[in-house]
Amino acid sequence: MRRSIVPGSFDPMTNGHIDIIERASRLFDAVTVAVARNIGKNPLFSAEERVAMLQEECAHLPNVGVDSFDGLLVDYVTHIGATTIVRGLRVVSDFEYELQMAHTNRHLSPEVETVFVMTTTEYSFLSSSIVKEIALLGGSVEGLVPDSVRQRLERQVRK
Amino acid sequence: MRRSIVPGSFDPMTNGHIDIIERASRLFDAVTVAVARNIGKNPLFSAEERVAMLQEECAHLPNVGVDSFDGLLVDYVTHIGATTIVRGLRVVSDFEYELQMAHTNRHLSPEVETVFVMTTTEYSFLSSSIVKEIALLGGSVEGLVPDSVRQRLERQVRK
Amino acid sequence: MRRSIVPGSFDPMTNGHIDIIERASRLFDAVTVAVARNIGKNPLFSAEERVAMLQEECAHLPNVGVDSFDGLLVDYVTHIGATTIVRGLRVVSDFEYELQMAHTNRHLSPEVETVFVMTTTEYSFLSSSIVKEIALLGGSVEGLVPDSVRQRLERQVRK
Amino acid sequence: MRRSIVPGSFDPMTNGHIDIIERASRLFDAVTVAVARNIGKNPLFSAEERVAMLQEECAHLPNVGVDSFDGLLVDYVTHIGATTIVRGLRVVSDFEYELQMAHTNRHLSPEVETVFVMTTTEYSFLSSSIVKEIALLGGSVEGLVPDSVRQRLERQVRK
Amino acid sequence: MRRSIVPGSFDPMTNGHIDIIERASRLFDAVTVAVARNIGKNPLFSAEERVAMLQEECAHLPNVGVDSFDGLLVDYVTHIGATTIVRGLRVVSDFEYELQMAHTNRHLSPEVETVFVMTTTEYSFLSSSIVKEIALLGGSVEGLVPDSVRQRLERQVRK
Amino acid sequence: MRRSIVPGSFDPMTNGHIDIIERASRLFDAVTVAVARNIGKNPLFSAEERVAMLQEECAHLPNVGVDSFDGLLVDYVTHIGATTIVRGLRVVSDFEYELQMAHTNRHLSPEVETVFVMTTTEYSFLSSSIVKEIALLGGSVEGLVPDSVRQRLERQVRK
Repeated sequence: MRRSIVPGSFDPMTNGHIDIIERASRLFDAVTVAVARNIGKNPLFSAEERVAMLQEECAHLPNVGVDSFDGLLVDYVTHIGATTIVRGLRVVSDFEYELQMAHTNRHLSPEVETVFVMTTTEYSFLSSSIVKEIALLGGSVEGLVPDSVRQRLERQVRK
Repeated sequence: MRRSIVPGSFDPMTNGHIDIIERASRLFDAVTVAVARNIGKNPLFSAEERVAMLQEECAHLPNVGVDSFDGLLVDYVTHIGATTIVRGLRVVSDFEYELQMAHTNRHLSPEVETVFVMTTTEYSFLSSSIVKEIALLGGSVEGLVPDSVRQRLERQVRK
Repeated sequence: MRRSIVPGSFDPMTNGHIDIIERASRLFDAVTVAVARNIGKNPLFSAEERVAMLQEECAHLPNVGVDSFDGLLVDYVTHIGATTIVRGLRVVSDFEYELQMAHTNRHLSPEVETVFVMTTTEYSFLSSSIVKEIALLGGSVEGLVPDSVRQRLERQVRK
Repeated sequence: MRRSIVPGSFDPMTNGHIDIIERASRLFDAVTVAVARNIGKNPLFSAEERVAMLQEECAHLPNVGVDSFDGLLVDYVTHIGATTIVRGLRVVSDFEYELQMAHTNRHLSPEVETVFVMTTTEYSFLSSSIVKEIALLGGSVEGLVPDSVRQRLERQVRK
Repeated sequence: MRRSIVPGSFDPMTNGHIDIIERASRLFDAVTVAVARNIGKNPLFSAEERVAMLQEECAHLPNVGVDSFDGLLVDYVTHIGATTIVRGLRVVSDFEYELQMAHTNRHLSPEVETVFVMTTTEYSFLSSSIVKEIALLGGSVEGLVPDSVRQRLERQVRK
Repeated sequence: MRRSIVPGSFDPMTNGHIDIIERASRLFDAVTVAVARNIGKNPLFSAEERVAMLQEECAHLPNVGVDSFDGLLVDYVTHIGATTIVRGLRVVSDFEYELQMAHTNRHLSPEVETVFVMTTTEYSFLSSSIVKEIALLGGSVEGLVPDSVRQRLERQVRK
């Protein structure tokens, strides 16, 4: 059985993330969405909330589970017996950063492979930070994140 | 009458900004230079100062006005009855970021169009942060910003 | 009255071209779609056919006309009294090439401005050569070009 | 069983291709290396020779087969019951072109997924055309292609 | 005698830095590795420690010296009688940022030339921040930095 | 004595080439401008004419000579006892292609170093092909190439 990891901050998850997770779930036998607990910049949502949102939105995908991790990604990947990291490649994206991380991970753990999957062009501009910025400025994030995430986001921002 | 917006932080304005504003003033009937009041990282100049500098340097352009705004750019654009956002494209620039913002704005307000205009190659490396960095390290910003801006900048940095 | 030019080879026109032409028609008082007659590599369609396809598909845009030209683009622009060149910027596009052409044209004719408008993300991968390649390999170009163009293309390819 | 396709011109195959094929063979149950028969520019090696070289060099990979195809890649993918296209991403590569092809293929066949795998940094500059250029100028391609390919290449170039 | 400067934060130095310094030492009669004392974000190592690490690792290069500087780089370059700045160009790197800095420096001091040298592909993904990130997450930086640097880094991180 | 090579097709040379050659002549003791004799696409000027134009325009640079070569660049570099290849980096340029060639040359001859020097921003869009295209379409190349080259070009194009 081939298990792959879709890692990220997911602060918060977006429709672009769902798109990538669904593609990963068709490519591999099992998929673990892995929430990075410690993300430098203080996160808008706690790791628990980020996991909860993903669980809710991945409920329809029988071969997908959600987890969180500390420390090095490649250590976590090996720890749970996975062999592949799946990353989304947005048409407008930090391509160079993605390659740098992937090569770093290959240096640290040559047996872990990173594969890139393209998001749909519709979400090519979408990122968690854009979503947060829009919400903080009072704009609507409808169509960019799942409805339940939108509600949490609106509550969080009002605080 | 077609009104366009040239938005930005302008912290401080540079000769590259003037170049873009002049080009916009030839392309559209009316141009509003719109200073973003809240720019995350603490600004070197207050929104009022940034507006004042622009007013001084745009005085020779009869169809250009200066204003400031809070909240979402596209809301402001619609609010003042404009339909176009003008952004400068430097030869060396954060092209991907510009496209991301433009697609985000199109998602939020499909009737607002973003058009990109190229700065002159002479200013292709110029940005507000470069100008601030040079001034903070004691270098001369002559030729990079208008003279009045240079004087304010030198005073500000000495503080 | 501000007249702008949307230049290109249009061999053949695609839905991405229509998208850019419609955006240009909202930005400027008058728009001339200008077909380059001499395009190095031997074209699939004659200049006359390319003009005809564009005329058919731009019929619904009252301020848009179609023409063809020889020689330097900037000479043609000046000749018909236009002042602006409009180019589409695809998310996935030859950005560097576009900037090079725009700077060259600015060098040749400083009073002619090039403005860039973004195609919709849906057509971000679309180009005339991709369309031709698909058609030549027997694939369907439905949804990539207008229906009338698709029919001409299928006829042309069968030859 | 998940079958993936590694398509290409392979004119000739390089060590970078082997690297990608080996990675694909670890990611998927079965892999078909698919040689595009008709490649516009007149090829240095016939499709048969290109297939033969790949067969020789993939002999040690039990789940890898070599085939050739005409027409649209996605039609071939569907025809042989595969669902995934694997493409190598070189650090120095035509990233934009790869994304354009992948989005085009997704448009033509939404159920076929393209995944990108990174070549090792050692081969980051390597391509079939570089190899041909070196050989034609009388340089040594040792270390860039398998030995058997190098010998064929030297023979071919001497003609 | 031609003296060149290899400037940087070196927080900490990596094997990629050594690679560039060695290349510079073959290109120029004399090389000064220049540590920027004030680097905005609070550094992991003091300027003195960063200088000490470089001195240790450059001991085998007879025409290389290590120094530190405050203020504008171009002022320092002129002050010590150098005429050239050497920067490493990683295959995966912030190319645009490098060009922006080089053009800024040329504007400030037209007689100082910046030359770019490529790191070996092996270190194409390597940067000081990646190294720090790995160390902070408890990973091994062996093969990425010299051994003495690795030991200091492990001590520093444990604090 | 350090000798460097500035290689190219120079079909024809442009003001951007002169800019790079002058920078190289300040960086190295001796500079050989090396004209590639066999350039695939049929050249506009013969190798002899390309050499002659360069000789004329480099006459004011006492440490610069002009030569032509066949075969692999790195073989030629070694043959004449040089150790460095100098390439211009235009702000708008085929950066990826330059890196690919430089890494290929490093693979073929590890002791030959490629250094990149930036053209002035003024010529950032300039290339031999742009110059030829303008001339062939009847435009003026004044300010893009030296006067003597312009005259030859006009004569050549009239043929």
